[in-house]
Amino acid sequence: MPHTTNTRETIPAVRWVGGVEGQLALLDQTLLPLETRELVCRDVDTLVEAIRMLRVRGAPAIGIAAAYGVVIGARDAVGQSESVGQGEAAFFVRLDETIQRLAASRPTAVNLFQALDRMRAAAEARRGMSPETIVAALLDEARSIHEEDRAMCHAIGRHGAALLADGSGVLTHCNAGGLATAEYGTALSVFFTAQDLGKRLHVYVDETRPLLQGARLTAWELAQRGIPATLICDSTAAQVLREGRVQAVVTGADRIAANGDTANKIGTYAVAVLAEAHGVPFYIAAPSTTFDLSIADGSQIPIEQRSADEVTHFAGRQTAPAGVGVYNPAFDVTPARLISAIITERGVIRPVNRETIAACLGRGVISETGRTSDH
Amino acid sequence: MPHTTNTRETIPAVRWVGGVEGQLALLDQTLLPLETRELVCRDVDTLVEAIRMLRVRGAPAIGIAAAYGVVIGARDAVGQSESVGQGEAAFFVRLDETIQRLAASRPTAVNLFQALDRMRAAAEARRGMSPETIVAALLDEARSIHEEDRAMCHAIGRHGAALLADGSGVLTHCNAGGLATAEYGTALSVFFTAQDLGKRLHVYVDETRPLLQGARLTAWELAQRGIPATLICDSTAAQVLREGRVQAVVTGADRIAANGDTANKIGTYAVAVLAEAHGVPFYIAAPSTTFDLSIADGSQIPIEQRSADEVTHFAGRQTAPAGVGVYNPAFDVTPARLISAIITERGVIRPVNRETIAACLGRGVISETGRTSDH
Repeated sequence: MPHTTNTRETIPAVRWVGGVEGQLALLDQTLLPLETRELVCRDVDTLVEAIRMLRVRGAPAIGIAAAYGVVIGARDAVGQSESVGQGEAAFFVRLDETIQRLAASRPTAVNLFQALDRMRAAAEARRGMSPETIVAALLDEARSIHEEDRAMCHAIGRHGAALLADGSGVLTHCNAGGLATAEYGTALSVFFTAQDLGKRLHVYVDETRPLLQGARLTAWELAQRGIPATLICDSTAAQVLREGRVQAVVTGADRIAANGDTANKIGTYAVAVLAEAHGVPFYIAAPSTTFDLSIADGSQIPIEQRSADEVTHFAGRQTAPAGVGVYNPAFDVTPARLISAIITERGVIRPVNRETIAACLGRGVISETGRTSDH
Repeated sequence: MPHTTNTRETIPAVRWVGGVEGQLALLDQTLLPLETRELVCRDVDTLVEAIRMLRVRGAPAIGIAAAYGVVIGARDAVGQSESVGQGEAAFFVRLDETIQRLAASRPTAVNLFQALDRMRAAAEARRGMSPETIVAALLDEARSIHEEDRAMCHAIGRHGAALLADGSGVLTHCNAGGLATAEYGTALSVFFTAQDLGKRLHVYVDETRPLLQGARLTAWELAQRGIPATLICDSTAAQVLREGRVQAVVTGADRIAANGDTANKIGTYAVAVLAEAHGVPFYIAAPSTTFDLSIADGSQIPIEQRSADEVTHFAGRQTAPAGVGVYNPAFDVTPARLISAIITERGVIRPVNRETIAACLGRGVISETGRTSDH
């Protein structure tokens, strides 16, 4: 497998190197935090394996990688079609095969399907044009998907950074960082942008059992950007709050109901209760696409139950008695009343309720003031 | 190292098998939860190694084991002194050497020193008697230390069990079980005694990061006694409380100040805040010897800071970026206002304040009603 070492200060999860004849470079997240290595994808097979093996993870990052994968597949289709003297029909058949293989790589990733739909539409809109023109248009479309996600991250960062005072201690749970997106992430974008603006922060990182995304990924991202950080066990967050070390909590979100109830990694609800008990604001940072207005409130959000092994084993080693019962929900739901504000790319929703959410999502423009409501 | 497999339903941490010529059997806790094996100690060297390597752990259990160790050492001293025709002076020199070696095995264990002091006094009181008489008296004294701890555990269990309704869900953090004491433990004694009384409980067990005492030890003890239990990540406790699965929280204590502020394993304070937020009573179960009336309140309890490796590594495998900052306090302090009651062997202290604590500790008798104050 071709890997290349990248020595820049920060390495994005996904990047396209060069023009139409270029290549896709993925930061191999399975090697983090011990090794920082990029995997270069010059063919669709390598990318499909990378998605399947979680070398690239996070719904936005997977969508972007797959969009570039369509470019690679289309480029190969041009060569194959031309070499055997076949025409446009054969090109589109090959393109469809590529899209179907990429779609099958992570069957539940919504952003993956959205990205592939956009790529297919971009090609279909150019039927009758030369294959070279279509490939160039596909690269443009992939770059647009990439750039839109990057812009979303930065807008969330700008809106959120305005909420943090210079010198603050902040706490986050799990990983809502650049590794899962085009660049800055969601919750971590707030910290990265604050740093860009010259605000000094100290970030407390919940390790986030059972899979340790905080320890493995968030701590790594903060170190990459030189932001002072302290790793803690999840159960230590209460003590850190009690000692007055934290002035704000910021986490990401997996799904937000119409009333603002928010599903996120298990343990987020605990942090929200503890933040309230210590008078510390609790913020959610998430793109507007995270809202599901078809869901009235959190009680209707289905919670995935995960394998007991995640809790009873570590790195193949058993740490609990055989046969013990385990409760291992992937997510919990934080009620809107505990959420001080939701930071979206369109602005900051505060207070959090059905009306302010509808107003923000219905507005359709990005508010640079970062406030939809402040009364 | 001589091990023997014990197939009884429950295996105590420490037991003496036989009479004066008997032997000490320790449950090797370093093998739990994967293997249940007893280590037989027929000489002091084996016991010192077992204490040093944490094969036996928990202050009361170490004290009991060391007391029996003095019996073994005294028995050997009789043989040695007689074989070379030496007298009482030589016997006492050898006995002192044994006591000093045992005292050095875990230099910070208060119960260890208390037990050894009692054993030394029991021997000194019998100067002039035959060595055989002294050894027999030492075995009696070790058995008294053992029996007193067992009685303390059972008294705590009786007082605490009265607080739990049949069919309750209960939550505990870390391990305050029989493995650390003569028999039933403190917090776990409440559950074991409730079961003995025919009350059905379901115990939710915090895995207790970073060292997983909940997963490794508490889950094992509950399984040994057939009590239904569910292992959870520490960050899942809030969700379990929110779902109404838990009607009481019971944990142990490391040190209790005069006003009731209680130091216990890191994460206990978080559970206490979460219990209050969900209207669930939070109980501490601890012997009266855990109170330190020289400490006015929790702010004066020193908190041990432990190695970063406990958080950044697991079973020798690194799980966080090299050089990341870590905050890893061993304990936190739960303020008295969050503690619904403290369950001691002398009765239940409720409400928890300086006056009710002084009244309970000053009384000097075990109250079978389990209440020092209920107004």
